[in-house]
Amino acid sequence: MLPVAIDMMGGDNAPSAVIEGAKRAIDELHAPLILVGTQEVVGPLAKEGFEVVVASEVIEMHDDPASSVRNKRDSSLVRCAELVKTGMASGMISAGNTGAAMASALLKIGRLPKVARPAIATVIPVPGSTPTVVIDSGANSEVMAPWLVQFAQMGTVYSRELLGIEKPRVGILSIGEERGKGNQLVKEAFPLLEVANSINFIGNVEGRDVMSENVDVIVCDGFVGNVVLKTLEGSMKTLAKAIFGALGSGEDGSKILDLALPKLFPILDQLDPDTHGGAMLLGVNGICIISHGSSSPKAIYNAIVTSMRLAEHDLAAKLAKSVLL
Amino acid sequence: MLPVAIDMMGGDNAPSAVIEGAKRAIDELHAPLILVGTQEVVGPLAKEGFEVVVASEVIEMHDDPASSVRNKRDSSLVRCAELVKTGMASGMISAGNTGAAMASALLKIGRLPKVARPAIATVIPVPGSTPTVVIDSGANSEVMAPWLVQFAQMGTVYSRELLGIEKPRVGILSIGEERGKGNQLVKEAFPLLEVANSINFIGNVEGRDVMSENVDVIVCDGFVGNVVLKTLEGSMKTLAKAIFGALGSGEDGSKILDLALPKLFPILDQLDPDTHGGAMLLGVNGICIISHGSSSPKAIYNAIVTSMRLAEHDLAAKLAKSVLL
Repeated sequence: MLPVAIDMMGGDNAPSAVIEGAKRAIDELHAPLILVGTQEVVGPLAKEGFEVVVASEVIEMHDDPASSVRNKRDSSLVRCAELVKTGMASGMISAGNTGAAMASALLKIGRLPKVARPAIATVIPVPGSTPTVVIDSGANSEVMAPWLVQFAQMGTVYSRELLGIEKPRVGILSIGEERGKGNQLVKEAFPLLEVANSINFIGNVEGRDVMSENVDVIVCDGFVGNVVLKTLEGSMKTLAKAIFGALGSGEDGSKILDLALPKLFPILDQLDPDTHGGAMLLGVNGICIISHGSSSPKAIYNAIVTSMRLAEHDLAAKLAKSVLL
Repeated sequence: MLPVAIDMMGGDNAPSAVIEGAKRAIDELHAPLILVGTQEVVGPLAKEGFEVVVASEVIEMHDDPASSVRNKRDSSLVRCAELVKTGMASGMISAGNTGAAMASALLKIGRLPKVARPAIATVIPVPGSTPTVVIDSGANSEVMAPWLVQFAQMGTVYSRELLGIEKPRVGILSIGEERGKGNQLVKEAFPLLEVANSINFIGNVEGRDVMSENVDVIVCDGFVGNVVLKTLEGSMKTLAKAIFGALGSGEDGSKILDLALPKLFPILDQLDPDTHGGAMLLGVNGICIISHGSSSPKAIYNAIVTSMRLAEHDLAAKLAKSVLL
């Protein structure tokens, strides 16, 4: 099995969180990894016997994506993408600059044949049900209707291969369930989705369906998708804080918390964005996982698990085949 | 004080929920109301001494908005709008067909001077902080950049008059905090908002800020706004169900629920969409509250409270003045 290239320099907690997550994956899963970073970071790891690639530069969080990928050719991020491009690695994982990770994947790894625009797929956990995949959740802030068909096809393959949903129900995000409701993009894309191959299109879905059991894959433009994702992130945080604050208030607060916490932890764990290790850029010729900037060791570990699973399932080939149909 | 016209026929629970909410407002607040509905519904209310207007038709939930407003001229909804138009009422409230309520307000009441497009403002409760107003949350699925400036001006007046926030912070919903991030609409609107009168513009905000203390008024197109609103609605429901299910599970479940529920009720109450009684169509020459289809008597009561408060504050005049600046 081909190794996965890990950008050791990316993320708010890099390199320590990345090192910890990578070491855990190697220990527990014998994960084949290439650790890519500066001499200072990966030198000691090489001495410990890990496979490393030394890069002399680092793309910082605030760097401009396109120009940093062009100018910092010996950065850890660009080196990761090149390892995928040259067939040395099945995929890459970075918790660094999201835009630069996308740009390096696009420019260095390249698109799959026929894919107009790669898109970011994000897995939304749904308590009590299977997760929902939202695609595009941030790569393309303006999209054309035919691209949404490809997003639907790629999201279907992703839902099937990652989550095991055999025939994922695909909905297009709109403002009203009835056919004909929505903005111009939705109205144009709807009839294309109806006749598209290799998807199970169920029509319009609404915001309230994102975290429900009603749909498996939701297609939308990357602006709306990103807003949805961050709205969920923010509201869950605010609500969790309010609930724990309320339960813990008053004289009996600590007693109630002691009783309630063990019951609530599984829900929090399910909602934890670290569970799936990050968002996936679908449509490039390899696996590209873009983890949250604040990724913990657990998030990195889970990203590695996900990338190994998808490499085993030969995700890129299946995506290419689905979009060709 | 001018009365408020209430559509007695609108909503899933009409007329009983509307009657109950209206009677409570009359009892408790001596609210001046005109109850508008069919003879069958308002006849008995007239005998009880309430002020009524009889309408012979009803616009149903599934009716086409524009054509039903044109064709059902003697419907309760159209009669409500006419009462506002002719100065007999300060505002109207309906929990019926949202599109038809908007259409009747637009066609019958008419726009305020200089307002390009009326927009729906919705109050998002934020546990632990003041609520956030999202405008447009559904009236215009495609918008032009200058309209967003008017949405910002109207949202500012609404936040101030309804919620008492003296100098509301206005953000434009985008995907990234930095200037320059976003789609074409955001990029065009940003510089217009920077130089606009009578608003306190703080720049881009993200989905995670909707339910936070970071911003008071969020402007966006009605497609994105509606998706955000319904995403929150759905996720809160799913999460609340999961939390109560988890707390109540196991042998000690009922004991834990007994202890936890009194602590959690205030949060649920704050999050209850019925608390503010509905969304407000801003930019028409009067008050127009569009309540949720599933409105309870409490929602109707709160809508009446809101409409009275805004009428006292002379909302329409203040909106007109703000947009003129």
